[in-house]
Amino acid sequence: MSKLAVVAFGGNALLRAGQKGTIEEQEQNAYEASKNLINLIDRNFNLVLTHGNGPQVGNILLANSAGHEKYGIPDMPLDVSVAYSQGFIGYILEQQLRNVLVAEDLDRDIISIITQVLVNKDDDAFKNPTKPIGPYFTREAAERISKTSNVIFKEDPAGRGWRKVVASPTPLVIFNRRSIEKIAREGHIVIAVGGGGIPCYYVAENKLQGIDAVIDKDVASALLASQIRADKLFILTDVPKVCLNFNTPQEKTIDRMSISEAKKYLEEGQFAEGSMAPKIRAAIHFIERSGKDTIITDTKLLGVDNGGTRITIV
Amino acid sequence: MSKLAVVAFGGNALLRAGQKGTIEEQEQNAYEASKNLINLIDRNFNLVLTHGNGPQVGNILLANSAGHEKYGIPDMPLDVSVAYSQGFIGYILEQQLRNVLVAEDLDRDIISIITQVLVNKDDDAFKNPTKPIGPYFTREAAERISKTSNVIFKEDPAGRGWRKVVASPTPLVIFNRRSIEKIAREGHIVIAVGGGGIPCYYVAENKLQGIDAVIDKDVASALLASQIRADKLFILTDVPKVCLNFNTPQEKTIDRMSISEAKKYLEEGQFAEGSMAPKIRAAIHFIERSGKDTIITDTKLLGVDNGGTRITIV
Repeated sequence: MSKLAVVAFGGNALLRAGQKGTIEEQEQNAYEASKNLINLIDRNFNLVLTHGNGPQVGNILLANSAGHEKYGIPDMPLDVSVAYSQGFIGYILEQQLRNVLVAEDLDRDIISIITQVLVNKDDDAFKNPTKPIGPYFTREAAERISKTSNVIFKEDPAGRGWRKVVASPTPLVIFNRRSIEKIAREGHIVIAVGGGGIPCYYVAENKLQGIDAVIDKDVASALLASQIRADKLFILTDVPKVCLNFNTPQEKTIDRMSISEAKKYLEEGQFAEGSMAPKIRAAIHFIERSGKDTIITDTKLLGVDNGGTRITIV
Repeated sequence: MSKLAVVAFGGNALLRAGQKGTIEEQEQNAYEASKNLINLIDRNFNLVLTHGNGPQVGNILLANSAGHEKYGIPDMPLDVSVAYSQGFIGYILEQQLRNVLVAEDLDRDIISIITQVLVNKDDDAFKNPTKPIGPYFTREAAERISKTSNVIFKEDPAGRGWRKVVASPTPLVIFNRRSIEKIAREGHIVIAVGGGGIPCYYVAENKLQGIDAVIDKDVASALLASQIRADKLFILTDVPKVCLNFNTPQEKTIDRMSISEAKKYLEEGQFAEGSMAPKIRAAIHFIERSGKDTIITDTKLLGVDNGGTRITIV
């Protein structure tokens, strides 16, 4: 019987650092990323793919703001920009994965699903927004905008200017999770919760509505994996294995660790916030709910023997 | 046993003439459009929804072009803009339809699928592009762009300037049609082929790629309806019934017509190109392949007894 895996691609899998983000670059990157999935298909995994959208949604926000200024087009809220990016990345990933499957003589449908994710508007994250998004502003411009709106700005630590920050609330429910599971278990490949999903909340029992926030893509992927009872979660990044003492002379790669070891390292501050730490937390979330393993690795090592760091329940 | 209906919303169902296109307007319109689907659910129809994207993709193209100019963001081709619009409209329609279903105590998944549609790059439509899209340019700017690209411009008949025109090729295959049919027949609501679908063609056997074109949304909906063996096609527009001698003192509404009558009226020029004529052709396409009926009507009359014009095989 086939097993079910959730594979979480980073936003950088499609738009790499240093690239401009042309469509040709992103198509090529999607093709390369898709090729690595064949290892998992050969090992009899059914697949649900998720992906980040950081670089893409940054460009969408800039374009919306420029279109608003130049042509007076109504500005779209962040949830709509996430929806744009799901349409775009889902399309490119599906198309290039089709090209890979045809070359391998595999016939599967690839279903890119626009995904809303429920959050709680009373989540503490809304009291202290931390996730920077969109264009950089001067201090003066940021102060001007803050005064006439409820937008919060923070200064970029690298000195590039001031950026809007939004909350990154905990995802609670993945909409359509039953259908996502069913379609994937029937052997088709599903692409879902792009960019962590479109954050929504209930204003009233029959009034679901988007909210200005960004859900961590790995946390949403882990929630999805547990809600669809996946057998394995792959979290892809740009290092082959998780490291202790990362970027120091004492750097040491981890082949395997239990969730209690992972929690201890987290407490020790071994993993950087905004980078490896949320991936480790996502892995723990999934493993605690499922008892199954999570692999953190580079896209190129997906499904390769002993590729990556395996995190296990004990 | 449930029947299967394809319901094609116009792009104007979400962004009405005279509106600016704010998110609040589009949410409200999507809610109103969704309410009318309850009539069909009550009559035991499973549903696949399709939608236009004209006004939305126009705004997306403008924003992309402004973002390119102001921030140097790589310009995205038309197929990517269609993908953005599928993400956006799929999201809003799904969200508002959920709100309607909750109010009616109905529990169904609503699956918005990013949809590619296969076209032939040798389609005659590419020799004579006719479909205007995107921003208006001055004659000088249009000539300048034409000289350094293969973009074709035509003058707007209403004198608003010069606009890029693209081909509107015949759709051949709806990708994922088997899954679309299966999900809908299991009782979930599918949203697909938004904006007529993302037009793609095979550069080589294992190289599927987007192409600069726009597929007529009603023609794509009719193809989808026949490929998923739908029992009925609803094409929604802004008049309650199809008319003969439209907008003349002899205007007469049609309650019912056969496809041979419809063809005769088409030949007589009774139906305006770019407006009612493609809807009638789409209806004929579906009826000839399925033997089933098509209803053309206003969104407000969806599923209402004797609402709209019924087109039948004989």
